[in-house]
Amino acid sequence: MLNPWASEDIKDYSRIIKEFGLKEIGPDMLPDNPYVRRGIVFAHRDLDLWIEDARNGNAAILTGIKPSGPFHLGTLMTAVDLAYFHRKFGVPTYYCVADVEAYEDNGLPYEESERIAVSHIAHALALGLSEDTYFYFQSHEKHVMRMAFKVARLVTDATLRAVYGEHPLRLYMAALLQVGDILLPQKDGKKRVLVPVGIDQDPHIRLTRDVAHRMGLVPPAATYHRLMRSLTGEGKMSKRDPMSYLSLDDPIDLARKKVYNAFTGGRATAEEQREKGGRPDICMVFTLATYFMDDEEIRDIHDKCVSGQMLCGECKKRVWDKIEKFLIEHRKKYEEKLPLAREIVKEVTR
Amino acid sequence: MLNPWASEDIKDYSRIIKEFGLKEIGPDMLPDNPYVRRGIVFAHRDLDLWIEDARNGNAAILTGIKPSGPFHLGTLMTAVDLAYFHRKFGVPTYYCVADVEAYEDNGLPYEESERIAVSHIAHALALGLSEDTYFYFQSHEKHVMRMAFKVARLVTDATLRAVYGEHPLRLYMAALLQVGDILLPQKDGKKRVLVPVGIDQDPHIRLTRDVAHRMGLVPPAATYHRLMRSLTGEGKMSKRDPMSYLSLDDPIDLARKKVYNAFTGGRATAEEQREKGGRPDICMVFTLATYFMDDEEIRDIHDKCVSGQMLCGECKKRVWDKIEKFLIEHRKKYEEKLPLAREIVKEVTR
Repeated sequence: MLNPWASEDIKDYSRIIKEFGLKEIGPDMLPDNPYVRRGIVFAHRDLDLWIEDARNGNAAILTGIKPSGPFHLGTLMTAVDLAYFHRKFGVPTYYCVADVEAYEDNGLPYEESERIAVSHIAHALALGLSEDTYFYFQSHEKHVMRMAFKVARLVTDATLRAVYGEHPLRLYMAALLQVGDILLPQKDGKKRVLVPVGIDQDPHIRLTRDVAHRMGLVPPAATYHRLMRSLTGEGKMSKRDPMSYLSLDDPIDLARKKVYNAFTGGRATAEEQREKGGRPDICMVFTLATYFMDDEEIRDIHDKCVSGQMLCGECKKRVWDKIEKFLIEHRKKYEEKLPLAREIVKEVTR
Repeated sequence: MLNPWASEDIKDYSRIIKEFGLKEIGPDMLPDNPYVRRGIVFAHRDLDLWIEDARNGNAAILTGIKPSGPFHLGTLMTAVDLAYFHRKFGVPTYYCVADVEAYEDNGLPYEESERIAVSHIAHALALGLSEDTYFYFQSHEKHVMRMAFKVARLVTDATLRAVYGEHPLRLYMAALLQVGDILLPQKDGKKRVLVPVGIDQDPHIRLTRDVAHRMGLVPPAATYHRLMRSLTGEGKMSKRDPMSYLSLDDPIDLARKKVYNAFTGGRATAEEQREKGGRPDICMVFTLATYFMDDEEIRDIHDKCVSGQMLCGECKKRVWDKIEKFLIEHRKKYEEKLPLAREIVKEVTR
């Protein structure tokens, strides 16, 4: 069972694909999408149908951020992906601040969400998210909330338990609200909505597909990305351990420290590594490379690693240089977008 | 346990007062209120504090209608009471259309609620409810919905079960929404809110008082009215049996039939009744009289009944004449208020 509120450290993604009836997403499906090419986005539901509908002007795209968490690489990726799909297909784009979710799950007061969302939205805009995006907060979007109450009568308590496992009422309510989120773009007419999310969020997609069928709406499509593992190499990243993830808010010094301390696929000794080569498949520095480097560079460090040509120290420097450059440039754009982000939040929380 | 979704036929109101820690409301407390004088409104919480706060301009009043039901005498009474308190204390007045409640409990679609609410609001306006009243629908009032989600984290599932008994999730959600309703008038500052309701709704009041305490808000006050029993004399009135209640929408002929067929406190024979007198305490015609006649008339038919001076036929005619006059006059006012009610519903459901 996938639990959106306490996801496991998933190791076997092909098992997940089989168990939940997902489809594999091959690199030929969206060849210009780097996350797809690199296998970070690894599966989908109805992406083929969505692309068709998007080409016919009958689709939308939506994702959300939970303002209780840092703006980490998962958040980066969904923002970049949203920008990508918007640019490529020109579809209406929705960016949800899941303030109710952050409150129910983490106790973050609504007011605090507003403060943090300014930063998150500035990051997303700096990453290329269109200013035309429909930004909203769950707790201010009446159509989402009234839909949650509507959905409450369409699903039984037994269904909720089957999809999510046993949870307190407030988390089921948060789940119903997410159904409301995903159906929002169909408020004024049927369209296919693509939701790029982490695989741990699939229960929401499944529940929404079920509800959409029964309401005569179009079931949403989804693309799924892998969950970021901890930079320390132990399990999944965790908000409680800042060394376990890279955040776009990290000061340069801290970010450098995180990269240099990251778990690698290096061998016990330099000799051994020169002989056997390193292991990018378990290396968090290589994982970081797949987010920040271009195809050629990635291939280059990969090949030099497995052949033993390049040791971890040199590799770390190459990857860090790239990340540092990105962070410095991003921070500049972020600062530029802050006033607009403030304005947006003020506008949509009135 | 009081169940707001399936209330029992309550026979012993003094037991309820004791069990739930209510206070009796004596006729000296609001001597100019006919429902209090007649014992229809029989108990309260913090009404004394509310009156003080209302005199200091620091109070509000709120009640709601469930558009799945007919506009019966309970609905009439709360509308008349709202008008009374507004007139007497000049407090801000809120009238909630509980469309989500009607949907969760009875499956009434939101759109259907809008249609029916036009009629209900026209009735309330015709009964004297001020045009200054803040009318709203639960599913359109974002502050109420976001408050429901907020409250979800402040109460445990165990508390909900203890207050309401075992119910499906959607009814607990409806309950949380009612907490949001009752707290709505404190959105922009603390004030004491009086809620005139049927005694079966007390669980909502208790839960809201608990939540208000914990949020640093003023716990709401309440007045409680008795539940209308069935005109047929068997148990409580029921939407499923139109002969069990009088509705302000009843055509005159049907209303007459209901009154004439109502269960009385008459004896087996005219002789016996002349000798022993009738029993107004169990008579539904007498109950109707307490809603439609003035004090003197009520006393007169009561005395003539218990002394055996007047038999049921004559009494029914007197009571019906009064009701008929009321219904005809009310219908005229109702028709006049319909366009305004339509406008209000259109405005608040945008």
